[in-house]
Amino acid sequence: MPNTGASHSITIRLQMDHQPGLFAKAAEIIGRLGGNIGAIDIVKITKGKITRDVTVDTSSDEHKEQITEELNQIDGMKILHISDRVFLMHLGGKIEVNSRFPLQSRDELSMAYTPGVARICEAIHKDPQLAHNLTIKKNTVAIVSDGTAVLGLGDIGPEAAMPVMEGKAMLFKEFGGVDAFPICLDTRDTEEIIRTVKAIAPGFGGVNLEDIAAPRCFEIERRLQEELNIPIFHDDQHGTAIVMIAGLINALKVVNKDAKDIKAVVAGVGAAGTACTKMMLDLGIKNIIGLDRTGTLYSGRDKMNDSKVAYAEITNPHKIKGGMDEAIKDADLFVGLSGPGVLSLEQLKTMAKDPIVFAMSNPTPEIMPEVALPHVAVMATGRSDYPNQLNNVLCFPGIFKGALKCRAQSITEKMKLAAAYAIAETVKENEICADYIIPGVFNKDVARNVAKAVKKAYR
Amino acid sequence: MPNTGASHSITIRLQMDHQPGLFAKAAEIIGRLGGNIGAIDIVKITKGKITRDVTVDTSSDEHKEQITEELNQIDGMKILHISDRVFLMHLGGKIEVNSRFPLQSRDELSMAYTPGVARICEAIHKDPQLAHNLTIKKNTVAIVSDGTAVLGLGDIGPEAAMPVMEGKAMLFKEFGGVDAFPICLDTRDTEEIIRTVKAIAPGFGGVNLEDIAAPRCFEIERRLQEELNIPIFHDDQHGTAIVMIAGLINALKVVNKDAKDIKAVVAGVGAAGTACTKMMLDLGIKNIIGLDRTGTLYSGRDKMNDSKVAYAEITNPHKIKGGMDEAIKDADLFVGLSGPGVLSLEQLKTMAKDPIVFAMSNPTPEIMPEVALPHVAVMATGRSDYPNQLNNVLCFPGIFKGALKCRAQSITEKMKLAAAYAIAETVKENEICADYIIPGVFNKDVARNVAKAVKKAYR
Repeated sequence: MPNTGASHSITIRLQMDHQPGLFAKAAEIIGRLGGNIGAIDIVKITKGKITRDVTVDTSSDEHKEQITEELNQIDGMKILHISDRVFLMHLGGKIEVNSRFPLQSRDELSMAYTPGVARICEAIHKDPQLAHNLTIKKNTVAIVSDGTAVLGLGDIGPEAAMPVMEGKAMLFKEFGGVDAFPICLDTRDTEEIIRTVKAIAPGFGGVNLEDIAAPRCFEIERRLQEELNIPIFHDDQHGTAIVMIAGLINALKVVNKDAKDIKAVVAGVGAAGTACTKMMLDLGIKNIIGLDRTGTLYSGRDKMNDSKVAYAEITNPHKIKGGMDEAIKDADLFVGLSGPGVLSLEQLKTMAKDPIVFAMSNPTPEIMPEVALPHVAVMATGRSDYPNQLNNVLCFPGIFKGALKCRAQSITEKMKLAAAYAIAETVKENEICADYIIPGVFNKDVARNVAKAVKKAYR
Repeated sequence: MPNTGASHSITIRLQMDHQPGLFAKAAEIIGRLGGNIGAIDIVKITKGKITRDVTVDTSSDEHKEQITEELNQIDGMKILHISDRVFLMHLGGKIEVNSRFPLQSRDELSMAYTPGVARICEAIHKDPQLAHNLTIKKNTVAIVSDGTAVLGLGDIGPEAAMPVMEGKAMLFKEFGGVDAFPICLDTRDTEEIIRTVKAIAPGFGGVNLEDIAAPRCFEIERRLQEELNIPIFHDDQHGTAIVMIAGLINALKVVNKDAKDIKAVVAGVGAAGTACTKMMLDLGIKNIIGLDRTGTLYSGRDKMNDSKVAYAEITNPHKIKGGMDEAIKDADLFVGLSGPGVLSLEQLKTMAKDPIVFAMSNPTPEIMPEVALPHVAVMATGRSDYPNQLNNVLCFPGIFKGALKCRAQSITEKMKLAAAYAIAETVKENEICADYIIPGVFNKDVARNVAKAVKKAYR
């Protein structure tokens, strides 16, 4: 049976003769083909005809066609219209800009706009720090992307990246109460991106970099943080790392191991893998082996760019050479930020007792939970349909909420670690178990706890 | 008596002994000093003491101090706190970014964000035109300023310009239903501004340029319109011109004159004055004389930059030389976009029969209505405290609403003129009179009418 979901949900408007058993025939077809019927609404009943809206979760565009084609062949039934619920939801975009209070009288207009607003402008002109209190800078983040590394889709350009950034803005508001606005850039030049973000910075209290390809993302983040005095945070790196570390803190409790004693393998040393590794070192892990497509990273290996050379210098203390076979043996922890099939069952079986496997490749993990679960102590993925989903939404709304509240000029390593602990500790000590090392994405305590911890850790 | 208003409104928290006549004493002082008492609220009553919040409109910071100092001297009365209502209103900024629908279930999350959103991204990647329907580009405008020509304040920088741009965003939403987001730029370099706006354009359906100093604003607008395929509109130029023309259309009806027959004088040939002149020519006026600080503009005059040379070529057909005295004689229309005192009563008296005076300098008009009114047929200003307020808010929400609806790639001269007529015609033929040539700013029909007319005029 195909894996259906709301992300391929359609509403079929069916007109059928008013005849017993006809709808049952349609339902049978949808069910037999693996579609999942949700709501059924009657739209109208006329003489001899009945029109229904049937909402069906499907698994793909082909699956949709298969279902609708077969429905069309039933005598006495006609498809009037098929609407795609995901497309419907996106019509006109997903966010809007609203006034925080009404503007309906002369007095309100003269306070919020001219002439009253001039007094606010003058006050900020005299003391620019007041912008943090008297403008949206107080609570507003720019979500900046050049659209070059969007989800699993890669380089799709700024227009096509907008729906993701709009979704992110929704999550910022829903979970962190933070106003976020998407800025998708029509340039992929490092210097041009830096210049543009600096130019638009005055109105923003922070910048969330998103879906910018490596290695350019490193330089962009570093330079912006040096040259601006508001926090710059590349979520694909640090958000991923913070949530991974949060899960790891609790996973280590489940297996009763200490960070400083374990051996870890990181598959995929791009932006996210590198950030995860740095935080793992901060957590106290001493023996970390990174792998790229060529094999393990160690000082002196060839085929390494600058960031891999730097990586090799602070990891792999025993200079293990070779591939996954050599690296994974006796490892306590596997962290995957690479792609499907990177960890085989045979390799998993050579890990130390009570292994922890974080297979975070999306949508298909490095090893499927169905295969791995019998052989691991704790497993986590990036997916919502298995336990322990490592999802960045657990981090970014809270970390910016906290940073904005204390008017932080940057997000320090200490703040990141505090965020990871705050996420981990949202799962109560007596609740922690192999299936529950990380809070659910809808747990509203998470952002609150993260914000509080981040604020406390600043300075 | 000083001119009080909500733009200098304070709330005074007064604690006073529970003693007859004490509050009357306070009210007497406020009244005598020219303060205007609004709401009076009781905050709490304790044994022998009563605490009240008294809202008072004042005229200036000094006026405030004068009132509060004298109140402080009443026996048995104590000021606990004074809050400035305009500053209170601006705390945290005036706009926010909201989701257009809730995001509270797994299904909603998987449709608005991953994995469902990937289908929208792919669709736009295949056909970038879909961005106009499936992202906020459909209804979102960037309000771009470099903070160099803000209100009457001049060059106050991007942070201090934000409150104005936020106020503008409120007006866009309130009157046009358009989402607008302020982008204040930390650069005043023409090329850098052009580059930045081009870089951030993918997410926007239009750009409203605002409070950018001349002559740079001309080049920026022209180049952006050439290099981007979304409408670019410098409101200080075209918004001002459109509203002025709207007023003029009806004023000419009041005096029963025809555009082609009148003589007009334009004082101030900066960005707004030039745009007004161009639209006056479009309206059919043939005899227009422009003046700068040096005097009238005519072909061959010295002390003229490129834009003034171009201006002189298309105006002043009789090559009138000299100053206001020479220019204004027998003129039917005075349009002021300059500064206080530019038109004297003596000069006004030399105008033709039934003169029209648009004294648009803000906050102080070129000639005060108290002085001019007995000698004019129709008068308009930029102020809300006299009849016939020429306010850009009558134009920009509707013109962008219309341009976004028809996905216009630019705002043409034809669309601008259509907007002016739509504003003018919102005042019904039988309502037009000397005191009512332009609709009020809270008239919600205006933006609707403008949008419809602009859409119709496109192509």
